[in-house]
Amino acid sequence: MTKSIDFYFDFISPYTYLAHKKIDLLKKKKKIIFNYKPILLGGLHNLEGIIAPAFIKPKLKHMMSDCSLIAKKNNFDFTWNSKFPLNSLNIMRGYIFINPDVKNLYLNIMFDAYWKHNMDISNKKILISLVEKCKININNFFEDAHQNQKIKNELKNLTKEAHNKEIFGAPTFVVNNKLFWGQDRLEYALDEYNK
Amino acid sequence: MTKSIDFYFDFISPYTYLAHKKIDLLKKKKKIIFNYKPILLGGLHNLEGIIAPAFIKPKLKHMMSDCSLIAKKNNFDFTWNSKFPLNSLNIMRGYIFINPDVKNLYLNIMFDAYWKHNMDISNKKILISLVEKCKININNFFEDAHQNQKIKNELKNLTKEAHNKEIFGAPTFVVNNKLFWGQDRLEYALDEYNK
Repeated sequence: MTKSIDFYFDFISPYTYLAHKKIDLLKKKKKIIFNYKPILLGGLHNLEGIIAPAFIKPKLKHMMSDCSLIAKKNNFDFTWNSKFPLNSLNIMRGYIFINPDVKNLYLNIMFDAYWKHNMDISNKKILISLVEKCKININNFFEDAHQNQKIKNELKNLTKEAHNKEIFGAPTFVVNNKLFWGQDRLEYALDEYNK
Repeated sequence: MTKSIDFYFDFISPYTYLAHKKIDLLKKKKKIIFNYKPILLGGLHNLEGIIAPAFIKPKLKHMMSDCSLIAKKNNFDFTWNSKFPLNSLNIMRGYIFINPDVKNLYLNIMFDAYWKHNMDISNKKILISLVEKCKININNFFEDAHQNQKIKNELKNLTKEAHNKEIFGAPTFVVNNKLFWGQDRLEYALDEYNK
């Protein structure tokens, strides 16, 4: 079996964007396989009865400055999305729908659109331009990714599966069935990976 | 004005214990003044409508392993308190009551009792032995610290004051009116302090 790190993500989460950037840097130095596992963070919170920081005023305020500081410390470009929390449902379904060979490009383009370029990914025109950059057939993307019941169910099921594994937030790293929550914990996930 | 870092704490919080240990190490190397600000974490959460991780099953489970890993990485002795979340009200009131010259000793003894020696600080016999170690008059401690309306109000007011400053968790560092939440963020608080 190939050793790897599972990475539970939702584009909606700024901390997940920061973790994604850290993973990107790491992959340039080391050969580590990260399995990106799409989930709906809102759905996961609902399953556990958790109120997201986005809906707790002082937590949201702290998260905004905290993310900027983390980005600065790591030399990542970062802009708080002025329409946060913009619903990520369509782009999460899209990730499941697209072919494996464009998934990595799609990850980079969508994460950057949300958390680097402050784009309104709920705007169809903007979304079309982003999807086109990934060389994905627009018609299929909008018809299949967003209407196809199989894709809809898959995202739901992946979220339920995460909940069953006692995952409660994003990003979460899973190594040897152990959970590491938060971009701060990539280092701990790597410790477990290198054991 | 003396430059300093405010440190909002409650003995009940394992992450605050870990932050306290980090501060202890730091103070051996550098002259930085930390103002310990007692609050009731449960009260603070109630004021903001936050459900503590202690009451969200998968969060609690993660917190337990996470704290152990942080302790291990930093070479701190740490034992999860088997009676967590043991009410810290009496020892928090005690901190306000005692004289400034024993506050530091009291901090170390109470934090270690809770998070190093797995002691039941709600047991009066155990608490007496801990207070005696601090060379505090037992009778005064139990009569005044726990019955005195002024002390009771002071802890309540300090908690409300923290809430008014948009503090929502512990530990929280405050430097130049900026909040840094979590033991992970001591480094960021120091960056602000050294600006």
